[in-house]
Order: sequence, then C-alpha cells, then structure tokens
Amino acid sequence: MSDVKKVVLAYSGGLDTSVIVKWLQETYNCEVVTFTADIGQGEEVEPARAKAQALGVKEIYIEDLREEFVRDYVYPMFRANTIYEGEYLLGTSIARPLIAKRLIEIANETGADAISHGATGKGNDQVRFELGAYALKPGVKVIAPWREWDLNSREKLMAYCDEHSIPVDFSSKKKKSPYSMDANLLHISYEGGILEDPWAEAEEDMWRWSVSPEAAPDQPTYIELTYEKGDIVAIDGQAMKPHEVLEALNKLGGANGIGRLDIVENRYVGMKSRGCYETPGGTIMLKAHRAIESLTLDREAAHLKDELMPKYAKVIYNGYWWSPERKMLQAAIDATQDNVSGVVRIKLYKGSATVVGRQSAESLFDESIATFEDDAGAYDQKDAEGFIKLNALRLRIAAGKGRKQD
Amino acid sequence: MSDVKKVVLAYSGGLDTSVIVKWLQETYNCEVVTFTADIGQGEEVEPARAKAQALGVKEIYIEDLREEFVRDYVYPMFRANTIYEGEYLLGTSIARPLIAKRLIEIANETGADAISHGATGKGNDQVRFELGAYALKPGVKVIAPWREWDLNSREKLMAYCDEHSIPVDFSSKKKKSPYSMDANLLHISYEGGILEDPWAEAEEDMWRWSVSPEAAPDQPTYIELTYEKGDIVAIDGQAMKPHEVLEALNKLGGANGIGRLDIVENRYVGMKSRGCYETPGGTIMLKAHRAIESLTLDREAAHLKDELMPKYAKVIYNGYWWSPERKMLQAAIDATQDNVSGVVRIKLYKGSATVVGRQSAESLFDESIATFEDDAGAYDQKDAEGFIKLNALRLRIAAGKGRKQD
Amino acid sequence: MSDVKKVVLAYSGGLDTSVIVKWLQETYNCEVVTFTADIGQGEEVEPARAKAQALGVKEIYIEDLREEFVRDYVYPMFRANTIYEGEYLLGTSIARPLIAKRLIEIANETGADAISHGATGKGNDQVRFELGAYALKPGVKVIAPWREWDLNSREKLMAYCDEHSIPVDFSSKKKKSPYSMDANLLHISYEGGILEDPWAEAEEDMWRWSVSPEAAPDQPTYIELTYEKGDIVAIDGQAMKPHEVLEALNKLGGANGIGRLDIVENRYVGMKSRGCYETPGGTIMLKAHRAIESLTLDREAAHLKDELMPKYAKVIYNGYWWSPERKMLQAAIDATQDNVSGVVRIKLYKGSATVVGRQSAESLFDESIATFEDDAGAYDQKDAEGFIKLNALRLRIAAGKGRKQD
Amino acid sequence: MSDVKKVVLAYSGGLDTSVIVKWLQETYNCEVVTFTADIGQGEEVEPARAKAQALGVKEIYIEDLREEFVRDYVYPMFRANTIYEGEYLLGTSIARPLIAKRLIEIANETGADAISHGATGKGNDQVRFELGAYALKPGVKVIAPWREWDLNSREKLMAYCDEHSIPVDFSSKKKKSPYSMDANLLHISYEGGILEDPWAEAEEDMWRWSVSPEAAPDQPTYIELTYEKGDIVAIDGQAMKPHEVLEALNKLGGANGIGRLDIVENRYVGMKSRGCYETPGGTIMLKAHRAIESLTLDREAAHLKDELMPKYAKVIYNGYWWSPERKMLQAAIDATQDNVSGVVRIKLYKGSATVVGRQSAESLFDESIATFEDDAGAYDQKDAEGFIKLNALRLRIAAGKGRKQD
Repeated sequence: MSDVKKVVLAYSGGLDTSVIVKWLQETYNCEVVTFTADIGQGEEVEPARAKAQALGVKEIYIEDLREEFVRDYVYPMFRANTIYEGEYLLGTSIARPLIAKRLIEIANETGADAISHGATGKGNDQVRFELGAYALKPGVKVIAPWREWDLNSREKLMAYCDEHSIPVDFSSKKKKSPYSMDANLLHISYEGGILEDPWAEAEEDMWRWSVSPEAAPDQPTYIELTYEKGDIVAIDGQAMKPHEVLEALNKLGGANGIGRLDIVENRYVGMKSRGCYETPGGTIMLKAHRAIESLTLDREAAHLKDELMPKYAKVIYNGYWWSPERKMLQAAIDATQDNVSGVVRIKLYKGSATVVGRQSAESLFDESIATFEDDAGAYDQKDAEGFIKLNALRLRIAAGKGRKQD
Repeated sequence: MSDVKKVVLAYSGGLDTSVIVKWLQETYNCEVVTFTADIGQGEEVEPARAKAQALGVKEIYIEDLREEFVRDYVYPMFRANTIYEGEYLLGTSIARPLIAKRLIEIANETGADAISHGATGKGNDQVRFELGAYALKPGVKVIAPWREWDLNSREKLMAYCDEHSIPVDFSSKKKKSPYSMDANLLHISYEGGILEDPWAEAEEDMWRWSVSPEAAPDQPTYIELTYEKGDIVAIDGQAMKPHEVLEALNKLGGANGIGRLDIVENRYVGMKSRGCYETPGGTIMLKAHRAIESLTLDREAAHLKDELMPKYAKVIYNGYWWSPERKMLQAAIDATQDNVSGVVRIKLYKGSATVVGRQSAESLFDESIATFEDDAGAYDQKDAEGFIKLNALRLRIAAGKGRKQD
Repeated sequence: MSDVKKVVLAYSGGLDTSVIVKWLQETYNCEVVTFTADIGQGEEVEPARAKAQALGVKEIYIEDLREEFVRDYVYPMFRANTIYEGEYLLGTSIARPLIAKRLIEIANETGADAISHGATGKGNDQVRFELGAYALKPGVKVIAPWREWDLNSREKLMAYCDEHSIPVDFSSKKKKSPYSMDANLLHISYEGGILEDPWAEAEEDMWRWSVSPEAAPDQPTYIELTYEKGDIVAIDGQAMKPHEVLEALNKLGGANGIGRLDIVENRYVGMKSRGCYETPGGTIMLKAHRAIESLTLDREAAHLKDELMPKYAKVIYNGYWWSPERKMLQAAIDATQDNVSGVVRIKLYKGSATVVGRQSAESLFDESIATFEDDAGAYDQKDAEGFIKLNALRLRIAAGKGRKQD
Repeated sequence: MSDVKKVVLAYSGGLDTSVIVKWLQETYNCEVVTFTADIGQGEEVEPARAKAQALGVKEIYIEDLREEFVRDYVYPMFRANTIYEGEYLLGTSIARPLIAKRLIEIANETGADAISHGATGKGNDQVRFELGAYALKPGVKVIAPWREWDLNSREKLMAYCDEHSIPVDFSSKKKKSPYSMDANLLHISYEGGILEDPWAEAEEDMWRWSVSPEAAPDQPTYIELTYEKGDIVAIDGQAMKPHEVLEALNKLGGANGIGRLDIVENRYVGMKSRGCYETPGGTIMLKAHRAIESLTLDREAAHLKDELMPKYAKVIYNGYWWSPERKMLQAAIDATQDNVSGVVRIKLYKGSATVVGRQSAESLFDESIATFEDDAGAYDQKDAEGFIKLNALRLRIAAGKGRKQD
C-alpha cells in the first residue's frame, strides 16, 4: 500500500468521505486531493472547502458542473428515450461518468497516481466510477475504502471519528435519514431502511423533491417545450440553457407531484435492490421527447431507436459511458435528431404529465394523406391490396404447403 | 367478380357494414354470411341478428368471444410488456387476429370462398384482417369494399341506403360522433375530427370510458393483483377469469381517470396518424406485470425480453399475429414466465397507477445480500474488485494503446 | 398514360431495354432519355450510344461509375461485414441505389418527370430502383414495363422487335444464356434455367468469373491487404483506389476458384428463389475485414456490429439504402472504424481464402497479457474469482431459491 | 481452507491435473474424486483410472459422454447456426456445460462440497466451469488451483512432481506440444507457442485432425445429409446417432482439408487471444443447416434467428449455458425447427464444403411462383406496385418535406 503518492477523492463534504480523507492519509500515507462538484444535488458545495482544509487537504477542487452535466450527459441520454428495465430514468448512473472524468483530469493536473470514492462494494456506483477511471487513465490506481476497511457500521465510523478528531457535526441532516440517498439535477434516490422490504410502501415524508399527487394543485398546469435537434431549448417560449431547463422542469414537475418512482431493479453486480426515485423534470422530458419524435422522426429510425434503447440504457446503467459501444450507439442516435424540432404541449396534473399537443415545421404528419375525409387522391387505397398481397405471400405459400400458424 | 359464391363478413350491425352486406350481394351476386362478435366493445351484439335478417342474410353468427379474447390474445401480449412506439398498448391490433381466425373458421364451416371487412384502405386493420386470413386459408378471396367502391363520403353512403332501402336508423349514436372509434375489452380508440390537427387537445367529452383525472375521487384506491405464471388470476384476493379481470380493472381504472393516451403513431401503410386511446385496465396491467417481473424474473431474461419487445410489438401492430415470427417470439417470452407469480399492490389516483409494493414466494430479491446493514458475509465486497478489473480490461488495454473514449 | 413527358431509362443496350425504349415512346408518347453506366459488369457501355441513337433517343448518358460504386457503396457496406441470410454478399443489391440516384439526378437535369427500368415484377430490383427513386424525388413517376405490358415471353418480345424494326442482333451473347444474369464489379449472378430446381447442381460452364477449384493452380497464392479505417487501400503494398482493389481481388480470387456461391434466398416480395453468385473479390474482402477488426476493434463494438449486421443487410437487400435507418446504421458502423487499420495476410487456394496472419499499429492484442508464459504481473489471475463470483450471483440466488436451469 | 471435505476434480489423466490431485489433497487436506469423460477428445480415458488410483483416489468416475454431448449440446447449438465473432464454431465452449453438470451431479452423489478444474485464470474455461457449477449447485465451493498456487511454470510443476513422487511419464505426447490444446468431438484447438504472434502463420505440423487442402484428394467427395427437425439423422441415407454423424463428418471433412480456422478472438475476461481450430464436421454442419433452412424456414423466422444468433453465441461463449437467457433463446430457436427437414447435398474438396443441392418435402420454394417463365397467374406482378408504393410512402412524405437522404 506504500506505492500511492497522491490520490484524488470524490469528496462530498459529508461524514463518510471525511473519514475517507483521514483513512487514506493514514493507510496509504499519501496526499489527498479533494474534488467536490455541484451537479445539482441541492446542497452547498463551498462548505466542503473548510472541511477539507481542516483535514489537512492542500489541493481542493470545488466546481459547478451543472451546465456540463445536463448538456453533455443528460441531454444526449434523453435523445434515446432511455429507460432501464422499463422504469428507471438512470438519474444516478448518468452523473458518474462526469465525476470519473473530472477525477482523472484532476489526477493528471495534480500528478496524482490514484483516485478514490465513497461508493460501497455492493452497488453500481463503484463500477461506474472505476470503469470510467480505467477507460480514461488505464494505469490509475483505484482505492475503494468500503471494499478495504472494516469500518462497516455506523458505530465503527463514529469511533474512528472520535479517535481521529473528525468533527461529528459533519454528520449532516442527510446522514440522519434512515435512507441512503443520492441527488443531482436529474433526480434524488432513496434506498435502504424500510425500503428493503419490497412490499412496504414508502413513507410520505421520505420524498423530498415533490409534493404528493394528493397535495398538488387542483388545477392543471400547461407548459410548452421547444425542441431543437432533439434537445429542449425553451420553456413556454423562453430560451434556456440545458441545466436551466432541467431546474425549471424539476420545479414544475415537483410542484405537481410528478416523477415519483418505486421499483425493484437489477444491479450490475448481480443482486436485485429496491429503490425509490424522484425525477420530476426527467419524467416530463421523456414524455415530451417521444412526442416531438412522434411527429418528426421517420418510422423505421424510431423503431430502430426503440430496439437499441435497452442496450444503450444497459451500457449507461452498467457504467460503460466511456466505451466504444456507447460512442457507437450515440452516433446512431444522434444521426436521427437533425429534424427533431418543434413544440410539445404538456399538461401537468397531480402526478401525471400528459402530452396534449405537438407541432413542428419538420412534421412528417401529412393531414392530406391521413385524413378520414376525401384526400383528393393523395393516397391510392388500391395500393394497399398489392402491399398486403406481397406481405402475405410467404404466409400463403407456407399455409398452402400445410403449415399451421394457429 | 363473378367467381365469389359466398362471403363471410365481419358485421358490426352498424350502418357501414350493413351497406357492405347489400353491396356484396349486388356487386358479387353472392351469398353473405355475417359474423358479429362481442369482444367487449360495450354494445349489444344480439340486435345485429335482426338487422342481418332484414338484409336477407341466412347464415348469421353472433358470438361472445370475450373470454377467448383476453385469455389467448391480451394475456399473452401483456406477458411481453408490449408497447408500440413507447406509448401504445395495441388495443385495436390485438383484437384483429381473433376476428380473422373466426372469419376463416366460419368460411370453412359454411363453405364460403371469401371474407370481407369494413376497414378502410388507409389503415392498419385491413392489413391485420387480411394477413390473418391469408395465413390461415391461403386460397381465400378477400373483399375490401372501401378499397373498391366509390361510396367514399357520407352523402354517397346515405344515397346508397335510400336506393336500397337500408334503414338509416341503423345509424347509431356512435356513428354520429365526429370521431372514428373502435372498442373492445382492452380499449376504445378515437381518430379523425379535430384530432387530425396534432396540436389540438382532445375535447373532454370525447372520452367515454374514463372520468377525467380532475373528476376522479380525491382519495386513492389501493388494489392487489395476484399473478400466476405471468397472468393475473385474482384482484384483491378474489379469483377471476381473464376477461373478468380486465373488466374489473377497466372499471377501477376508468373511475380513477387512468389510461388516457394521446399520440401520433406510425401506421404500417406508411403514414403518421393521430389517435387517442383509453386503456384503463391495460395501463394498470402493464405497470403491475413489470413490477411482478422485477421481483421474480432473472436480470438477463428481463433484459432480453426488453430487447425483443419492440419487435414483438411491431409484429402485432403490423398484423403478423399468425406468423412464424410471432410464434417464435411467444415461445421465448412464455419460457420466462414460469416463476412470475406473486402479488402487486397498486395505488390508483387521479390518472396515475403507481406500484407501491410487491411480494412473491418466487422472489429473487435477497434482503440478506441487498441490505445496507451488515450482511454477515452473504456477499463478499472484495469480489467487486476483480469483477471491475476484468470488465475494465479491454478498456484499459485500449486506453493504454492511446485510444480516446472522450 | 398521357401525362408523362420525358422518362429516364436505365438502359443496358441489350434487347429487353431496347424494346422498352420503343415501348415507352409508343405507349406514353414521351421522350426517352437513356442512361447506361459502367459499374464493372464487364461489357462495353459505349456501344449503347449507337443503339440508343438508332432508337431515336436524343439525350444519351453513358458514364463510368466504377470508382464511385466501390468507394461510396461497396466499401461502406463491407465495413459492416455484411451478409444476407448467412451467405449472400449483396452484389446486386448494392449497385441499385447508385443507379437510382443517377436516374433521378439525370431526370432533374433533363427535366424528365419519370424514370423507367427493365426489372421484372417478381424480383427485388424493381423495389430497390423505385424505393430509391421515390426517396430522392418523391413526385417522380415510375414506369415498370414488365409489370404493365403483355410481352411476357421471348416470342412476344421478338414479334414486337419485328413489328418495330428493332435489330435482333441486339440480342447479345449474354441473352442467349439459359440464365438470367446480372453483373457489376462486386459480383455476377445467375438465376433461372435449371437453377429453378434447387436440387440440381449448377453446370460448370455456367460460371464466368472464376475457374473451378479443381482447375485452380496447385500452388497457393499469398496476398497482403492493407487497411486504413476499415477500407483496403493497398494490395501487397501497392496503393490502389477502391475500384482498382476490387478489380485486382476479383482477378486473384477468380483465378483461385474463390467466391462461388449457390443458395436459396428469401426475396423481399415474399418468395424464395435460387441463385448462384460469383463474388471473388468480395469473398476475400469479407474474410480480411473480419481479420483486421479481430485485432483492432473493441469486443463490445464488434459484438454490437454483429447484432446490427443482419438488420443492415436486410435494409440493403430490401432496397432501403436511401433511408433514415440506413443512415443511422451507417453512422454506428462508421463510428467504429477509426482504428481498423493494418495488414492482413491471406492464402488463396483452390476455392478457399484463409487468413494466416494480421498485424496493426492499432492492435489491441496484448501479448504480455495473453501469453501462456509468465506475464510478469500484467494480469492478476485472482481478479477472475471476483469476476466469476459476481457474474454468477444472480444464478446462485435463483438456484438457492430452487430454480432449475437444466 | 480447512472447510473442504471432498472435492470432485475434472481429471484428464495428464500431468497438470495429476498434480492438482496431489495439491488438493495436501492443501485442503480433503478427499479427491476424479471425473474423466470421453467427449471425443481422441484419447483413451480408461488409463486415467490407474493414474488416479496411484494418487490415492478412491472414487473414480470414467464415462463415455459422446452421445449426450452431441445430442444435447452440439445439436441444439447448430440449430441456431451459431458462430462467435463471425468465425468461431464454439468447439471448446459447448463442451464445458456438460462437464460442469456432471461435476455437480457427482458432487451430489458422493457428498462432495467442492469441485475443481485445471483451467487457468486467464481463460474462458474457468468461467464456463464455474458459472455452470454455481448455477446448478449455488453453495458449491470452487477450487481453481491455477488461480491459487504458485506452480506457474513448467519447472515448478516438475519440481512438485519430484517432491511428491508423481510419475513424470504422465507427461503425454500432447504435453510436449508447444501448443496448449483442447479437443472434443466438435473440434481441437491450439493456442500459445508461435501463435502468440498473430502475424505468424501456423506451422503445417501443428494441425492434427485434417490434412492440408494441398494434401487432400484431387477429386471431390459428394455427400448427402438428411435432416429431421433441424438435426442431421443420416449421411448418404444411412441413419446414425448424433455423435456418429459428427464422427463421420469429422473424418470426411478432415480427409478433405476442411475446417481449419485461424483467428484472433475476444475472451470474456477482457483480452484478445489468438487460436487455431480444426472443426471439420462442424464446418460442414453449419453450411448444411443453413442450406436446409434456406428451403424450409420462413423468411422472418430466419431473419429473427440471424439477429438473435450473436447473442446466443455470446451466451454460450461466455459460459451461460445453464441460464434463463439460454433457455429463452433455445425456446425461440427450437420453435422454428419443426419443418427443417430434408436432404442437403454437399461437395467436399480441398478445404471447401460447398452446398450444391437441397430438397425437402417441407420446401417453401414454390417453382410455379419463382419461375422466370410464364407462371400462369400464380403471382400477380401488379401487386408489386402497391407494395412498393406503400413501402415508399414514408420516404416520399419525408422527401416531400425537404428531407435529404443522400
């Protein structure tokens, strides 16, 4: 363990990662660089500076990555209508590659030979951090304290703090929650506590970002989202940057009880786990993106996107953002978004985001063809006969040879 | 046109198909057999008998197919968590293969050499009817009046009725609607009228099966659905047949404003069309089936199902139920459902169906492994290091050779 | 039929398309523009000029498209290791989009409102020509004489020639063959004649581009192919343009009895057909491209390419080159080829092309890791335990709950 | 290490696994049960008995599994036309699940709590053995000596033999080969030695199962393979059991220089490796199975099989035979084989297996439709117009709105 000289730690400023600072210094006898990012988790990041300094850290990185996070990670992911296992909008997964990238960039800047993080050995996040790190700096040393140390209970952690004079008021409100939580601009997640019983309903006071549908306004809210090439660029006609869009949609969605999710999911490490998520803005974005695509995207491109999406979601969930396969899938997805522009109108009401209208200068909806009224010859119904006949030909030949399909 | 002797017509008893009876008799100088089925469309089918008799039909088939419809078509489809283009639950599509099958069986029983239907030449239903018919009886003659005749306006149809003494009180309430509608136990659909403008919001009084979320009760309703091998067998502990389950869920969902959908979809014949759908029970079933699978289904089987689902949805949407590829996909899907048993608890409230609990004797959720607490050695966190290292190996080698992933 | 003013015809100079020139002039009373392209079919194209002139054609296009054909169509297709139905290298399919594009461009240049071709109504080529034409010029009129006229036998065609003074010496050597043939730089195909019995072996004298394996040299020929970004740029170190590469490989392959294929394939129009193909150069290219990728391409990108390939092949076979889905797939494929560079060594011998060596500056083969000898710690075998343990976890949990996998 | 009481070892009788017997006895102080199977590797298995006895083993299992191997593993795999990475016929991969299953069954019979094998920590085989073992007996202990001990060179192994009086004449001819080899009825593989340089051509005297194409007979051999439901049941009309078929085809193929392969492949553990393979019978079987399917299998089922195949190959290559996803894929594949019956005629000549004819009572090839001659109305060419028109509709609409496809 003597060969690590300097390690960059993903540092939240909370109790656990503060203990890690000390533990790294002691165990590896190395210098620790802390990296704290604002990715929209809703807590101040600046206080992490004083805490790190108090722990003897000399190189302290504190950064606001919200714009980059939404622009370069969240937005590209939503172009694919990405959902993991039919339900999960990948709120935690999508933040990890950015953290991994910055950890490595800071390691390169500071001459560090290792990175470290506070994720446990049971979860997906360790995988996402480390795959990213290895992909970007193959020789990096990764230190995952939770897989190494024996501080595997709250009592032992506290005892360690006592021994090492780590102020326990570090312990934030968040840490007193019975749940393990993670938040960024896309979502907040809850695991553990009573959620470990998949039959138990989450308690109302667990949820932090949204009111309950019952407590939401009795009148619906209508919004209009403007898309350009697959990305939202304005809300109700007001131009916004990507992270401003997501912040605004989070407020709108949260106020209307939208985006709560309670699922059992399959982790990459092989176990099932139960999690609750609030993704107010993301829930609206998924609906809206499908709607603008429904009007502007070619059928076969749309279907191919749907077939590729589960793969793409799995790639991100499993932590392979920085991989050739993600690049390849992204190229396919992005190649379809040139005309995905227009406006989607959505009704928000007590837990539901419902599309009620969509329009686009790039619309492929051709009213003159689709109409139930007289179409003045735009579509020749007789063509359908040949279309059906030839599509049926293989089935007819098979049936003629005695094959049974029922 | 002289070579058709007897034709079996999918007869609703409404104005259009009554005109078709007469038109077939005149145009093809052939005998017409009518087939009217109750598949849960919510209208009496027995009155079709007198109407058919009045039109001179001698062989009249009127059947209650609700149980068969849900058991053999809707249920198998929901095992796959089937959605077309991310939104549509295939309510119309899934009813067509059953109609096609009965048309052909009746043709075989009555010695008919042709079948006929009232679907237009612009839609998907003609394809679904005819592909099914050809697959089951390759030599059958198909007559699609809407592709042949020139009665392409309401006025011409009315004039035809006058000329041929077809009582215009045939014209039901449904026909006076500005919308083209179709209904069965799974859903009711609306097309045409103001919906031909994709920006226009559907009027509240269009919807027939559900109250608006705003008008739904202010208190949530909780229900428990019991699954056996992928299918719902009981609601709140009360055993029911498949069609009874769907009827009950339609009522529960409809009363809580659940299952409304407003989309632009891509038809198989090549155009986009806008449709509104109410699928109250199906919307609940989809959520619940995913939830019971989340607890009982293996991860890789679940992911493979997700990758196959868009294909399976397309096969059904396009009308290939009676095909080798549907059989093949169904075999794969059904091979995964043996252990998909247990209970799902759902909250219904003002437009949303939310899963709040799930339990199963077949659960693969292992609390002793998943726990955030001490797991007494059930899972060795150190295994994660090797797991990550080998999964990263190809990325590290590539990065070591200078490949860039960002 | 009176509304066509000018039609661009894909004109081979042979009997059939000469009849079409006359038939178009007569039937549509329109001007005919002929377009004859050298795409490597091995026949002179210049003679088509005099023939067209003799038929009264004023606008005559004769072009050498060999370079464009291989560079922009064949090469991109081979980047995907494309094979249709496990065997067919798509030699005919890949030439059609280029012809379609030029037909439309010439229509635009000459002010023509229609295009025409000599493909039959039973085959794939009509679909490929027409889908391309419609995709590039949606309002174009397409005239497919074989679907319209009644000259459906050799006798009637000859009688038509007599009546219209079309010189029957037009009838080339090719036309006297009992087979329907098509050729371009990628392949030559044979259909019809005794091949209509799938049990009958093709006669040796049918094959035109290759010697039989039995007649090939008794000594193997070794060649080295140099790849840059997925494309062959040199043979045995000699730089060549794409079409020169293919010409050279055709000679090398043909001389060694390589590239004969005898299959039954599924046409897009719904029937099975039997075809024989000679693709000497393409057969070598497929082998070689896989080999250079095996050394330089990431595993997951390679596997994703393999999963997408059948779709891509189908898109091309069915005639959707000019489509959003082909564009999308091509973007994914091309995104993987940046490092597919190096040299492949191949042994050609009596019908077989065998890869015997491959090397690359971009190689991801890491001998220090892969070696069976001592690897000096490059790979820690203990990592495998954790890798296997976590990959097995879901299976162990399932087995622990009593699930049977055998 | 004290907790293992009895371990079942996959024992070849060779030097390495003999050392493992002794090492297990010493290191774990446990009883060793040996299991030696004849899966067609071409070496006597009975001699393993005396060797095991000499090492003090009391429970010795020696079994002929050839029939089971081909019938239950090789044949099902070939129904899918399985190839890994476009080239590899999975000869090693497919034998592992059977060995894993027998190891576990013997562990259950003998009351053993562990299994062991002689595969290294760098390869795929450890994964395949262990995933199978865990899937079938989740609590089993797995001992992989090569990942644990320090006998990582030939010298150390020899020294160990000396110390423990293990007769070094154990060292068979095979062991003196410069290559690491593995054989069973489906193939023999070679790795290591000069093959670790991917540019180096394999030496002629490496190959053991086939003559070189140059040394093969100057006259072709024709054979006829009879299929029933996707499996070969007779050669040249003579009924045979599955393993007899494969043995016979290995001889026929080997004598004609067929089935040599030289590739770089991607291992599941993350590295590329170079391997040479001889798969004479399998190479013929793949060609033949595709040929019989080409005549008897529906197009869409065939295409779906092609899309699923790479996944299925990966599942087997990676060691997940005993998994829900393999079961699911097998169900899909097997659901297509009911009519895959008939006869395929193949020409074997100097390295090539070429299909020259195929026939079947279940043929879907309809000569009356496919013919270039007059088809007497079996196919209406005019149907093609509507077919093309509607397939082109989405492309025309898009082009009409100004979308560019080129």
